[in-house]
Amino acid sequence: MSEVYAARRARLRDQCAAAGSAAALVSRPANVRYLCGAVPPGAVLLLGPVQDLMVAAEVPATPPLSPPAPPPSGSPRAEEPRLLVLPGADGDPVVAAADLAATDGAESLAVEEHDLTVARHRALGAAAPRLRLADLGRCVEQLRLVKDDEEISCMRIAGELADQALGELLESILVGRTERHLALELDRRLVDHGADGPAFPTVVAAGPNAGRPGHLPTDRRVEEGDFLSICLGADYRGYRCQVGRTFVIGPSPADWQVELYDAVFAAQRAGREALSPGRAYRDVDRVTRQVLNAAGYGDALEPCTGHGVGLEIDEDPRLTPSAMGKLDACVPVTVEPGVHLPGRGGVRIDDTLVVRPEADGGPELLTITTKELLAL
Amino acid sequence: MSEVYAARRARLRDQCAAAGSAAALVSRPANVRYLCGAVPPGAVLLLGPVQDLMVAAEVPATPPLSPPAPPPSGSPRAEEPRLLVLPGADGDPVVAAADLAATDGAESLAVEEHDLTVARHRALGAAAPRLRLADLGRCVEQLRLVKDDEEISCMRIAGELADQALGELLESILVGRTERHLALELDRRLVDHGADGPAFPTVVAAGPNAGRPGHLPTDRRVEEGDFLSICLGADYRGYRCQVGRTFVIGPSPADWQVELYDAVFAAQRAGREALSPGRAYRDVDRVTRQVLNAAGYGDALEPCTGHGVGLEIDEDPRLTPSAMGKLDACVPVTVEPGVHLPGRGGVRIDDTLVVRPEADGGPELLTITTKELLAL
Repeated sequence: MSEVYAARRARLRDQCAAAGSAAALVSRPANVRYLCGAVPPGAVLLLGPVQDLMVAAEVPATPPLSPPAPPPSGSPRAEEPRLLVLPGADGDPVVAAADLAATDGAESLAVEEHDLTVARHRALGAAAPRLRLADLGRCVEQLRLVKDDEEISCMRIAGELADQALGELLESILVGRTERHLALELDRRLVDHGADGPAFPTVVAAGPNAGRPGHLPTDRRVEEGDFLSICLGADYRGYRCQVGRTFVIGPSPADWQVELYDAVFAAQRAGREALSPGRAYRDVDRVTRQVLNAAGYGDALEPCTGHGVGLEIDEDPRLTPSAMGKLDACVPVTVEPGVHLPGRGGVRIDDTLVVRPEADGGPELLTITTKELLAL
Repeated sequence: MSEVYAARRARLRDQCAAAGSAAALVSRPANVRYLCGAVPPGAVLLLGPVQDLMVAAEVPATPPLSPPAPPPSGSPRAEEPRLLVLPGADGDPVVAAADLAATDGAESLAVEEHDLTVARHRALGAAAPRLRLADLGRCVEQLRLVKDDEEISCMRIAGELADQALGELLESILVGRTERHLALELDRRLVDHGADGPAFPTVVAAGPNAGRPGHLPTDRRVEEGDFLSICLGADYRGYRCQVGRTFVIGPSPADWQVELYDAVFAAQRAGREALSPGRAYRDVDRVTRQVLNAAGYGDALEPCTGHGVGLEIDEDPRLTPSAMGKLDACVPVTVEPGVHLPGRGGVRIDDTLVVRPEADGGPELLTITTKELLAL
């Protein structure tokens, strides 16, 4: 694996050099992980003119705020960046890294302005006043867009783990249990099956909460007649996935429930079928949206119908009406239209898929839980 | 409660006016919550020259990344800031808020430079080019330092919930179970007893992992002879607490375990006893540290022996050798020295306490689980 990381760093170094920066400082945690693999929490990467360095604080945030890094696979190699741990409690790794870059003779340093706060950026500038600071922009995020086989196979496993946890939950009795407890049970099952943890806070939303964007579990109990929407994902070696389904509780769904479900299902299928290399992000969003507009739910639809996924649960690209850019092969995205009717509930159906050319069979579905409307 | 929030906003407004800014933009989530109570995830607060506004994106991050806000208590009041929800997927609330401040005639706007990224700060400046941007600094964090009775009673409940969950776990069989499973069980028990969730990722560390700073649960199983260190906290209405204890697994601890435990226990007690209004942060750290230095564990000690706690698990003040400032009454802090011996394990003992004057009985301990060395 360490060759993989070294190759990623080499690509970034080439891009920085082309943009006129001899040194770059990567601080966004998912970007550091992409370029180095296992790193201590809060570590940053300096791609320097003379040497590469990982810089970490002696004490990670206590208690820990970021997921654990996997142990490095294979033996350490010469091309791995050396790890420098700052003594004491007060050192900021980005400030120390800028100082080191200046000491190594760098004249300019590209930093991640979308990650650094204004205060950290200023402290960094003050520590190395002769360094010209440039913006690395979303350069590493761009490299992360297209996933390699190793990354996709981690995501495939993450998808299986989430499907498994959800499938088991559906076999148990749901009526009378709270959203919170169902969410905790899903988290436990994810870990039981080998996930490093949930990919994001698990969503369980019953009755009027169902389908609500950004809902977090409450003490609402599942009742007969409810819509129940569940959205979960697994983290497997840092890679994530997302599966969301909506069910009806009780022997048979009401007419309005069937109608709403069918509309969201049709929209989600249209979005999935639109995934192909070269297709504009906004086109995928548009075809999803059109189905729901035609069914009269346009006003209740959310502004984003899907997003990229990988080391972060919500990464580039975004599938929205104003998104710029086109899908590539081997880009994993979610397709997740949702409609929420205030006071009544709603429906969300989320899948994670990998964009593949038609010749390879079209988009690869990572989350295979049935999308039939189940009455539980 | 809404009078409380209005009074907090009035204090901030006075401080801003004194510093020459007629308007302030608060973006750090815990600060927004402190000033407004219940807010949608990602919402920011504009304290404007004409009106106060909360500005939120139409779609919160999907899936949700921040804890749910509690429902507002009491009826809405005239002094509550109006909520403005930005349509579409691409609006940044801080940019919209700056634009509104300029429209309302503000000439300067104080922003939280320790929260805003360089990129957001620039976008905000571009949206309102005539606005002079100033730094609000950690003004709201300073207001948050001293807690009122309502805040402390939430933290007291959070402490009880964590003690309860930990106490129940200790009654079960631990040998053979993995760190991950024990952590999940603690999380479930916290929620069972009424917590809104864990206050931070629960730490369970067995054997050589015990006492390691920043450890997150692994598949390591608990074995006879292990040190087992556990650190957890509850989130109750947004307020947090932290309790950490270390146990020995098996009928009787080894001599080195007793010796290490006694040293950390003595250090932690010294730190707790040093908590009083007017005492310098670094003094509390020093008395803790001195005990472990004298016992020969100085090198293995972490650079931070405690920190503030409230709406965030790790907030001001920090108890470190270089910290500046003095404790006040009604400031909750942790005292949590830890020593980790590589390859062998270690000991952490963490409590959350509220600083109180001697006349009121001295520091109030919120986490009352026994600190005797239990052999389980």
